[in-house]
Amino acid sequence: MVTSRDVARAAGVSQATVSRVLTSANPVSAELRERVLAAVDLVGYVPHAAARTMKTGRTGAIGAVVDDLASNPFYPELLQELSDAFDDLGQRLTVWTAGSRSDAAIRSLRQGLVDGVVFTTVTPTSTEFASAVDSRLPLVLINRTLDDVDCDQISTDNVAGGALVADRFAAAGRRPAFIGGPADASTSRQRLTGFRARLTELGAALPPAPWEIGDYTHDSAYRAMQRIIAEDAADAVFCANDVVAVGALDAAREVGARVPDDLWIIGYDDIALASWTSIDLSTVRQDARRMARDGARMLLERIRSPSSPVQHVRLEPELVTRGTSGR
Amino acid sequence: MVTSRDVARAAGVSQATVSRVLTSANPVSAELRERVLAAVDLVGYVPHAAARTMKTGRTGAIGAVVDDLASNPFYPELLQELSDAFDDLGQRLTVWTAGSRSDAAIRSLRQGLVDGVVFTTVTPTSTEFASAVDSRLPLVLINRTLDDVDCDQISTDNVAGGALVADRFAAAGRRPAFIGGPADASTSRQRLTGFRARLTELGAALPPAPWEIGDYTHDSAYRAMQRIIAEDAADAVFCANDVVAVGALDAAREVGARVPDDLWIIGYDDIALASWTSIDLSTVRQDARRMARDGARMLLERIRSPSSPVQHVRLEPELVTRGTSGR
Repeated sequence: MVTSRDVARAAGVSQATVSRVLTSANPVSAELRERVLAAVDLVGYVPHAAARTMKTGRTGAIGAVVDDLASNPFYPELLQELSDAFDDLGQRLTVWTAGSRSDAAIRSLRQGLVDGVVFTTVTPTSTEFASAVDSRLPLVLINRTLDDVDCDQISTDNVAGGALVADRFAAAGRRPAFIGGPADASTSRQRLTGFRARLTELGAALPPAPWEIGDYTHDSAYRAMQRIIAEDAADAVFCANDVVAVGALDAAREVGARVPDDLWIIGYDDIALASWTSIDLSTVRQDARRMARDGARMLLERIRSPSSPVQHVRLEPELVTRGTSGR
Repeated sequence: MVTSRDVARAAGVSQATVSRVLTSANPVSAELRERVLAAVDLVGYVPHAAARTMKTGRTGAIGAVVDDLASNPFYPELLQELSDAFDDLGQRLTVWTAGSRSDAAIRSLRQGLVDGVVFTTVTPTSTEFASAVDSRLPLVLINRTLDDVDCDQISTDNVAGGALVADRFAAAGRRPAFIGGPADASTSRQRLTGFRARLTELGAALPPAPWEIGDYTHDSAYRAMQRIIAEDAADAVFCANDVVAVGALDAAREVGARVPDDLWIIGYDDIALASWTSIDLSTVRQDARRMARDGARMLLERIRSPSSPVQHVRLEPELVTRGTSGR
């Protein structure tokens, strides 16, 4: 096995110098650095990660706890952006899927396998999140937020996003409804809050029970839309995300409802398929790339400066009008 | 900091016994095991992963190199199944996204951070794969395969899948075309091979140039379908995956082609959205769950028995007929 002793010999320096270069612990001259790195390549030395972690206390790895990868394309899109962002910042991203099977993530968090954690789908009852807080790991919440937690958070301004849709519905004199996600998801709750508040502000009609709470799936949205159609409860439906909106759209198309003439549907996220001809969905666009890049930087900053002030960042949403609503 | 010494004291056993229980290195009685684990909980001991890796040479982690997470929903669906499968088997799954930014995965592979690796989108030029082979890590190829590599592989029988579609087109006397993915993806190549071979076998028409090679995206499929329609080159199009099929379907719908009356489209994968009303796509179904579970078991078996015979497993595909083709 090639060791740092071989590197030292090939570079004509001491083992301590090799260690200084490889751990960036102390400054060395550019010339010395180049010489050592060339020797690393020459002898084919790979610093053993476990050994290095023991020495430096840093793993060079960031954990991401994600959920709904299979059911909502927004998350794989966001994860790809996160992966690119951390890679650009020289960090290794380790991904765990959350949900009922959270053992893997929790074990890793408690065992110090990562320097910090990103959560993209946190809820107040998330066991992974509780475990990260217990472990005092640097962490950042991306996309979903928690009100009463003192940590860095970045999301779209979902209240503003809901208001954008309310403005559009009210200007057209449409009777509004909302099909949401889980009650414990901040995203769905904030979008509804902004939507209702703006409708009230504008004096627009608030029908009796048009606020459907589902589980962010196509199926539950499909059933919610069937109820809305059966009761003729609305002619403009705001859906808490794009998958929900396609479920609603499919229910409308099944019964031959004319979209957008008789019925408007607006989603949230602007996932790739929202722009496909067969879907052609009006939606509130989230800037997933910026959310990922700014969130990644916030986490690295937190790792470097544990006591710097906590940041809550909200990005501006944008309404994208396509074939399921009027202009 | 709580150490294994505290656990030993609380359990009234030696530190060596604690170590035997926690590393499963040597058998201990069930009673002793229970006593030690109760003491672990009592004192809140978390074995330091890096230290344990140094001792046992096992990380308890499996790496997965994935790609196209953002562009093809089949991969997040497969990844979710893999995550569940490894979790059920008591392994931690670490995920890296491949592609142009492969540094993170390669560094982790070379630094011994995982006991084995899963590849879901391998190509002959994959640098991550080359690195895993160099590192002599146990590995398994899932979904995509490589002909001349001596390692465990599991995939759908894509040649058989292509033949299923050829049978259907030929029985209806339709003029076939194919819209593929990248030339270096085994999946697209094998599906075309099976499709052409069966068409030839049946004496069905093989038109001049209906074999379009794209990049497995909606956009390139959309443009390929526009060419096929402009040249009236076919009236039944087999698409190498479902995203490609929706791109083709969208191009057909844009120009008002009547599907399935005038034009059939059949995809591959049976991702969730294929069954949505707005898409309603006929497709060749892959059993992603079984592929993930059997692949996970194959890899753990390989880690335990490095010299056992290499397995190549092929799962049967199934044709699912929906609204974009005749029965």
